[in-house]
Amino acid sequence: MTARVRYDDVSEGEDLKPWSYQVTRDDLIRYAGASGDGNPIHQDESFAKSVGLPDVIAHGMHTMARVGQFVTDWCGDPGAVKRFRTRFTSMVVVPKEAGNTVTVTGRVTGKAAGRRVVLELAAGTPEGTKVAAAEAEVELA
Amino acid sequence: MTARVRYDDVSEGEDLKPWSYQVTRDDLIRYAGASGDGNPIHQDESFAKSVGLPDVIAHGMHTMARVGQFVTDWCGDPGAVKRFRTRFTSMVVVPKEAGNTVTVTGRVTGKAAGRRVVLELAAGTPEGTKVAAAEAEVELA
Repeated sequence: MTARVRYDDVSEGEDLKPWSYQVTRDDLIRYAGASGDGNPIHQDESFAKSVGLPDVIAHGMHTMARVGQFVTDWCGDPGAVKRFRTRFTSMVVVPKEAGNTVTVTGRVTGKAAGRRVVLELAAGTPEGTKVAAAEAEVELA
Repeated sequence: MTARVRYDDVSEGEDLKPWSYQVTRDDLIRYAGASGDGNPIHQDESFAKSVGLPDVIAHGMHTMARVGQFVTDWCGDPGAVKRFRTRFTSMVVVPKEAGNTVTVTGRVTGKAAGRRVVLELAAGTPEGTKVAAAEAEVELA
């Protein structure tokens, strides 16, 4: 586990170190198995295209979970995340060979009572498409 | 895929049919693999107890994803979920043999412009512990 971030060491306006993750078709197959969401738009290219999508797309919940992981990795304590809200703004398209890369960025936008900090987060693809915006409220040590 | 729920067929105040899922140690191991969150509090009973937890606990993001799945299963369209916010209120403890059961309930609390509905959601365990509260904004057909 990462060392825990302490409330007193965090400044409002501070940027978190960005983090990128790869997402491949295999990831989506594993995620489908683990989450129980077997919708074929996340696994079957022909099906995805037949319903008008450009290709297989990642589960929104997969993206949300990854952004959440960015926060728990940052603060070093999964139990610290007290609220988490996500707005989905675009799809993460996952081509067969190349997959895709999602970069998560974050900033401390507020410090509140009870040793809580508010983080604003964004997830985007290399072409500059913003796929999700999120806000997390985290109770630090 | 489920048939899509239509905006015109949804009423404010309407309760969604509750849904329960089992969570076992194996689920958490698979989820750790799929999510990349290998924190041992979600897998290793001795470690979890050494840091003061009652037992292994589920990843908060696992619970959040399952509640999200309840919403996408209900509306029949994963792309329909435009916003999702979660407040974590307690842990999902996952004993070795028995695992645990989480029941998700939901209600339509509002209808808005753009064919959007607001859902209030709750997840709880059989002992009556509320583990998460969530709100989703969903754009229906």
